Amino acid sequence: MKFSVIITLKKDVLDPQGKVVQQTLQNMGMDSLRNLRQGKYFEIEINELDEDKAKNIIEQMCEKLLVNLIIEDYKIKKL
Amino acid sequence: MKFSVIITLKKDVLDPQGKVVQQTLQNMGMDSLRNLRQGKYFEIEINELDEDKAKNIIEQMCEKLLVNLIIEDYKIKKL
Repeated sequence: MKFSVIITLKKDVLDPQGKVVQQTLQNMGMDSLRNLRQGKYFEIEINELDEDKAKNIIEQMCEKLLVNLIIEDYKIKKL
Repeated sequence: MKFSVIITLKKDVLDPQGKVVQQTLQNMGMDSLRNLRQGKYFEIEINELDEDKAKNIIEQMCEKLLVNLIIEDYKIKKL
């Protein structure tokens, strides 16, 4: 079973890397750009046929390694 | 208008960073993990009310800066 995990910085956390990308695009003439934030993305495949159990395992991976829960949020989606 | 952009490595491109994360999770006892690939994620907000035009601008941002079209694919979605 395959899942996607999207990890984003919480709303009030600064995103300096995203700001650099934003400024670069604006310097390239993309005037309509208002805001850009960078996140992380994972595609994870696991050997587990039960969807609830599988989601649970992915959640554990997020909370134990992939996500810094203090500054980041995450969303899991079945692919 | 706000969009998400997911950038993934093409199928046949090696993902050493993803492999390291995968091995770390496996070393932590996540035995059911079969495969993990890492990608990039952006949330982009632009001042453009016409959805087609907005998508077009986002596409330009991808092709001119964000995505390396030789080794990466991208997907744009309206949020």
